[in-house]
Amino acid sequence: MPVRVAVNGFGTIGKRVADAISKQPDMVLVGVAKTRPSFEARIAMEREYPLYVGGDGRLEDFRAAGLTVAGTTDEMLRQADVVVDATPDKAGREHAAKYAAANLKAVYQGGEKPDVAELSFSALANYEAALGKSRVRVVSCNTTGIVRAASVLRARYGVERWDVTLIRRAADPAETRKGPVNAILPTFQFPSHHAPDAQTIFPDLPITTTAVVVPTTLMHLHVNHVQLRRPPASVSDVLDAFRETPRFQIFRSWEHVEGTPQVLEYARDHLSPRGDMMMNVLWEDGVHLQGAELRFFQAIHQESIVVPENIDAIRAMFNLAPDAASSIAVTDMALGIRQ
Amino acid sequence: MPVRVAVNGFGTIGKRVADAISKQPDMVLVGVAKTRPSFEARIAMEREYPLYVGGDGRLEDFRAAGLTVAGTTDEMLRQADVVVDATPDKAGREHAAKYAAANLKAVYQGGEKPDVAELSFSALANYEAALGKSRVRVVSCNTTGIVRAASVLRARYGVERWDVTLIRRAADPAETRKGPVNAILPTFQFPSHHAPDAQTIFPDLPITTTAVVVPTTLMHLHVNHVQLRRPPASVSDVLDAFRETPRFQIFRSWEHVEGTPQVLEYARDHLSPRGDMMMNVLWEDGVHLQGAELRFFQAIHQESIVVPENIDAIRAMFNLAPDAASSIAVTDMALGIRQ
Amino acid sequence: MPVRVAVNGFGTIGKRVADAISKQPDMVLVGVAKTRPSFEARIAMEREYPLYVGGDGRLEDFRAAGLTVAGTTDEMLRQADVVVDATPDKAGREHAAKYAAANLKAVYQGGEKPDVAELSFSALANYEAALGKSRVRVVSCNTTGIVRAASVLRARYGVERWDVTLIRRAADPAETRKGPVNAILPTFQFPSHHAPDAQTIFPDLPITTTAVVVPTTLMHLHVNHVQLRRPPASVSDVLDAFRETPRFQIFRSWEHVEGTPQVLEYARDHLSPRGDMMMNVLWEDGVHLQGAELRFFQAIHQESIVVPENIDAIRAMFNLAPDAASSIAVTDMALGIRQ
Amino acid sequence: MPVRVAVNGFGTIGKRVADAISKQPDMVLVGVAKTRPSFEARIAMEREYPLYVGGDGRLEDFRAAGLTVAGTTDEMLRQADVVVDATPDKAGREHAAKYAAANLKAVYQGGEKPDVAELSFSALANYEAALGKSRVRVVSCNTTGIVRAASVLRARYGVERWDVTLIRRAADPAETRKGPVNAILPTFQFPSHHAPDAQTIFPDLPITTTAVVVPTTLMHLHVNHVQLRRPPASVSDVLDAFRETPRFQIFRSWEHVEGTPQVLEYARDHLSPRGDMMMNVLWEDGVHLQGAELRFFQAIHQESIVVPENIDAIRAMFNLAPDAASSIAVTDMALGIRQ
Repeated sequence: MPVRVAVNGFGTIGKRVADAISKQPDMVLVGVAKTRPSFEARIAMEREYPLYVGGDGRLEDFRAAGLTVAGTTDEMLRQADVVVDATPDKAGREHAAKYAAANLKAVYQGGEKPDVAELSFSALANYEAALGKSRVRVVSCNTTGIVRAASVLRARYGVERWDVTLIRRAADPAETRKGPVNAILPTFQFPSHHAPDAQTIFPDLPITTTAVVVPTTLMHLHVNHVQLRRPPASVSDVLDAFRETPRFQIFRSWEHVEGTPQVLEYARDHLSPRGDMMMNVLWEDGVHLQGAELRFFQAIHQESIVVPENIDAIRAMFNLAPDAASSIAVTDMALGIRQ
Repeated sequence: MPVRVAVNGFGTIGKRVADAISKQPDMVLVGVAKTRPSFEARIAMEREYPLYVGGDGRLEDFRAAGLTVAGTTDEMLRQADVVVDATPDKAGREHAAKYAAANLKAVYQGGEKPDVAELSFSALANYEAALGKSRVRVVSCNTTGIVRAASVLRARYGVERWDVTLIRRAADPAETRKGPVNAILPTFQFPSHHAPDAQTIFPDLPITTTAVVVPTTLMHLHVNHVQLRRPPASVSDVLDAFRETPRFQIFRSWEHVEGTPQVLEYARDHLSPRGDMMMNVLWEDGVHLQGAELRFFQAIHQESIVVPENIDAIRAMFNLAPDAASSIAVTDMALGIRQ
Repeated sequence: MPVRVAVNGFGTIGKRVADAISKQPDMVLVGVAKTRPSFEARIAMEREYPLYVGGDGRLEDFRAAGLTVAGTTDEMLRQADVVVDATPDKAGREHAAKYAAANLKAVYQGGEKPDVAELSFSALANYEAALGKSRVRVVSCNTTGIVRAASVLRARYGVERWDVTLIRRAADPAETRKGPVNAILPTFQFPSHHAPDAQTIFPDLPITTTAVVVPTTLMHLHVNHVQLRRPPASVSDVLDAFRETPRFQIFRSWEHVEGTPQVLEYARDHLSPRGDMMMNVLWEDGVHLQGAELRFFQAIHQESIVVPENIDAIRAMFNLAPDAASSIAVTDMALGIRQ
Repeated sequence: MPVRVAVNGFGTIGKRVADAISKQPDMVLVGVAKTRPSFEARIAMEREYPLYVGGDGRLEDFRAAGLTVAGTTDEMLRQADVVVDATPDKAGREHAAKYAAANLKAVYQGGEKPDVAELSFSALANYEAALGKSRVRVVSCNTTGIVRAASVLRARYGVERWDVTLIRRAADPAETRKGPVNAILPTFQFPSHHAPDAQTIFPDLPITTTAVVVPTTLMHLHVNHVQLRRPPASVSDVLDAFRETPRFQIFRSWEHVEGTPQVLEYARDHLSPRGDMMMNVLWEDGVHLQGAELRFFQAIHQESIVVPENIDAIRAMFNLAPDAASSIAVTDMALGIRQ
C-alpha cells in the first residue's frame, strides 16, 4: 500500500513536492494545504489535488473564488501517514506538536533549525541513517548542493579543506517584493550558515563558506576551492566521478552554456516541468585541477534542487527502498531527472 | 498527406516552431537547420529532429561534438513543402531566392520587412487572406499582441483611436550580452515601428505606439488607451469579448498575479512547455472603462506568442483549414493552449 | 534675520533639504533629527549640522558611535521658526500636533495626505497661494514633474486632455530591501494616485495617469500625451517654452543621452552634488507634435526634484520673496541649478 | 614649471583624470581629445578644457554642435610633456609610436598589455620604480584594489597564499548596451587575468583569482582569503594596518553600510565629485581572522579607483615627489580623498 503523503504549504517547494509525490509509484498525495486562494490553488484544483485550507486561511475566501475545498489542515493530516512541511521558514517548528499529536511522521525543510528533526538529510550522503526515522529535515538548496558534491569528493579523494564562495540569487522569480535591484551585498556572518549546515550531515567536513547576494533570480553559483587528500589523476577523473553519480549535470564546452541563464534555457528546452533543474550543474570548462587542489563552479537551482531529496527522505522513513541508489533510481525515473 | 515543414534557424522562435509542428496532426517536421553545435542542437538530436548544418556552419564542428547531422540546409529544403525561416532579423530576406528556386513556400518572421511576403499575418485578423498564399510573414510579438486585441475590439465595438505605450523587455532570458542593467531607455522614434506594423494587417487602424525599454527579461507590457466607437455595456462585456476569443488569458483578482513574473509562474505551474505563455495576458483588475474609453494592460510573452501564428499560417497556405476558428482550434489543442 | 529651519528626518529628502537650506542666504539650519546612528549621521556631524535624536532613537546609541548629539527633537523644534518634516510617509501627520503646540510652521512632503496642510505646493504653479501660510505640503516627485510641465503647457497653449504613463523606478539606489529584481508590475489603480495629486494644485487639469513599476533605481520616466487647446507653431516653440522656464533641462540629439543613465552621468559630470538632477529632463528628440497633439518623454529624479520646492515653500511661507520667479532665482542660484 | 599633461580619450577614466590633473599644484592640463560631440564634450568646454578632435572624429560634427575645438590630437600632443592615454582597451598600444615620435612621456591604462610600458604601476606598491620613467602603465581597477591591499599585508604580515573571488559588475552606470540583465556568469579562465596582472607589480605574490560577472553597475566586490606568514595580533591590528595606509576606507558596524549601494551613497553624501570612491572599501564587520588566516571583503569602484594612481604615476615620471608618501599626500589633498 502506498504511503499517504500530505503537503502542508503550497509555495515554491510545496507545489513541486506535491507534483513529485503524485508521480511516485509507492506514494499517494492525500492533499495540499494553502492559506489563501491564488492561481496556485486553482492549478491544484485542476490537477485534482485535494485542497485544504491551511494556517489562518478562510474557507469563504476559497468559495468566493469558486475553488473546491476538501476541509481544514487537521482533516488533511488525518488522511496521511506523513506530512511534508513546506510552510515558510521557522513556521514548521510550530506545527511539530500537531504532527506528533496526529501520530504522523514529518519531513521538514532546511529553513527550520536542525533540532526540529532526528536528522538532517541529503540522499547521496546519509540515506541509510534516515531509514525508519520519524522526523527528517531536508537541508536547504545551497547545503544540498554542497553536500552532494561532498559525497562525491569525500568518497573518492578525501577532503582536506574546502572553501566555498556562495553567490546567491536575491529572490525567486515570482518574489517581486524582495531586492536589491542594483547591488552586491556581502554577508557579514563568517562562516555563513551554510558551513555549519553542511556539517549537520558531515560533521567532520573541513568546510568554510562565505556568502554574497546579487540581483538575479535564477540560480545560486558556488565558487569552490577544495584541497583534496589524494590527488586525482586528471580533471577527467574528477569529471567522471561526478558523471557517475546521479544528480550531476556537466555541460561541455561546445554546448555554449555561459552561465545560469543558459542552464535554465537548457532545462526549458529539455521540457523539464517548470523549467526546473534538480541536479547540481557543473561545467567541464569550469573545473580546474592542480595537484590535489581542485577548483570548480557549480550552479544550484534554488527552487527545485531539494524536491527529489524530499521524496527520498520519505522513502527512507518508510523503508520503501533499502539504500540511496535504489531510492534515487526510482525518484529520478519518476521525475525525469537525467543528464 | 501531411505538409512537410523545414525550420531554418533553431533559436528562440525556431526551436519552438519545430516542437509545435511536430505536434500537429497535419504537418510533419522534415528537419531543422542550425549553424553551430550547442545544447539546443543536442536536444534537437535527442528529440530525433533531423539536424542540418545551416548558414556558415561547419559539419566537422558538429561531428567533433558527437552530433549526428543529416546534411546541409539545401538538402533539408529538398525534403520540404514549406520552410519556416527563423533565422535572425533581416537574414530571412537573403534566403528568399533560395526558397523560390527550391519551389518552396515560405513563412517569415516579423523581423523581416513586410515586402518579403505577399502578406503580413495574424490568425485572428486575416487567416482567410492567407489561404493558398506562398509567402507569408508572421508579425512580431508585440504586433501580434496588438493585432489580436484589435481583432476583438474592432469587431465588437469599433476603434476610434488607440494609444499604446509599450514597455519592452531588454533581452530574452538567455541573451546575456544585451543590456541595460539599470536604466529606462525611451525610443525616440515616434510612432515606434509597432503602429505601422499593425497597419500592415489593419491598414485603417487608428493606432499610435510609443516604446520604452526596461531591464527585465520576462515579458513586454502594453499600456493601452482605446477610444471605442460604440461604448461597451460594462467592463464585464469587454472581458467577455476577450474571454470568448481564443488566445486570451484573463487573470482574476483573487489569483494574485501582480505582474509579469507571476504570469510566467502560472505558465510554469501549468506545465506549459518551456514555461511559455502563447496567449495575450490581461487582468480583470487591469481593465478600466469610462463610457467608450477603454484602458487595459496586457502582457506579451516575446519568446512564444508567435508560435501558434506560424502554425496557422502554414495551415492557411496549404488550405488545411478553411477559416481561422478551425485552424486555431487544431493548433491550440495540439499545443495545449487554453485559458 | 534669516528664517530658522529644523529638518525632522534625515533620509533621502531630509539630508538634501538640510544641505539646501544651509546654502540659502535667507535661511539658517538649526538642526536635523535622526533616529539612529549611521554614516548619514556621521556626515551631518562632519558638516557641523546640530544633530538631534528623533523618533524612538536612543541617545546612548549615538554616543556609543562617537557622535555628538545636541539633544532631542523637541529641543530642536524650540530653536526653529519652521520645520521641514521629512520623516517616512504617513508619519508626518502624527507630528502635526507637536509642531502646532510648538507654534511652528511646517512643510510636509508628498507622502502625506493633502489635508495635512493648508495647501499642496509646487513653486512654478502656485507660489503666491502659499504666501504667509503655516502648513504647506510639497507634492511628491512624480507630481512635481507633472505640475511643472503643466505650468508651462497650461499657460502657453491650454490643456484639453493629458494622459501620462509613469514608468516608475522600483527603489532608490541605496534601498536594498525592495524589489523587484526582474519584473514589470502594473499598478491596478486607475487613475494612479498621481492624477488626483496633480489636481490638488490644478483642480481643473484634465489629466489621467497610469503607473507601472520596473527594476531600475535611477529615475522615473513619464510618457506624456497631451491634447493642447491651441496648437503650437512648431516643436521648437514647445521646446522654447520649456527652455524659457526654470527647472527644465533639455538634451540635444548630439549630446547622446540615450536614457536615464546618461542623464545622471551628465549630472555627475556636471559635479552636481550627489549627482542630483533637480530639473525635469526632456529630450529634443523626445518631443513630437502633430497639430495640437503633443507627445513627450520626461525623466524625473525621484531623490532630488522636490528639494528646491521645499526651499521655495519656506520662502513663500515667510514672505521672503514676493513671487515664484524671484524665489526660484535665489534657490536655483544657491543650489547651482541651471541648464 | 608645472608638467603639461594631455589626456587622450575622454570617457570614464579620461574625464576623471582630466579633472584630477586640473586640481594638482604641479601639473597643468593642456587639453583633452574626444572623437565625437556629446554631453561630456560640452562639459569639457564649459570647464574650459581645450578640446581637441581625436581618433576618426570630424571637426564639422563638433562645430555643428556649437562646440569650440582647439585642434587635432596631434596639435594637442605638441603642447604636452606627457600624455595620459585613456582611449579604449587595446587602442593605447596603437598610439605608442605617435607618442614616441612626439617625444612625449606616456601613461597607459590597465586595458593595455604590460609590455606597452616600462613598468606596471600602483603608487603604494612601486612608486619609486617609476621615478624618471617614460612609459608607465597604471594597472586596472581590480588589480589596483588587490595590489593596494597586498602592499599593506605583505609589508606587515607577509603573504603565504592568497585567494580572491572577484564578483564583477556587469557594466558601468552609463553603459546601456551591455548585459546581462538577469544572470550570474562564471569566467572559465583560471586564474582570471587579475592574478598575473597583480604579479606584474609583485612577481612573487602567491595569488590566485577567480571571477564571476553579476548584473549590477556600481562596484566590484572581492572576497579575499589570505594565508599570512605572521599571524596578526588581532582583527584590530589588521584594521589598524589598513587605516594607517592612505586610500583605504573602513566602515564601522553602526554606519549601516550593507553593501555597494550604501558605499556609493556615502560617497554621494560626502559630496565626492561624481559620487566617486577612490579608496579601497572595507568593513570592520567584514574582516575575519583565525590565526594567520585572514578573510575580508573589499569593494572597488571601477570608475574612479585608478584616477589618483594616474596622477602619482606622472609625479614619479617627472620626479615631482621623491616617494609614494609625499606624492600620495599631494594627490589626495587635491582630490579630497580622506577616510
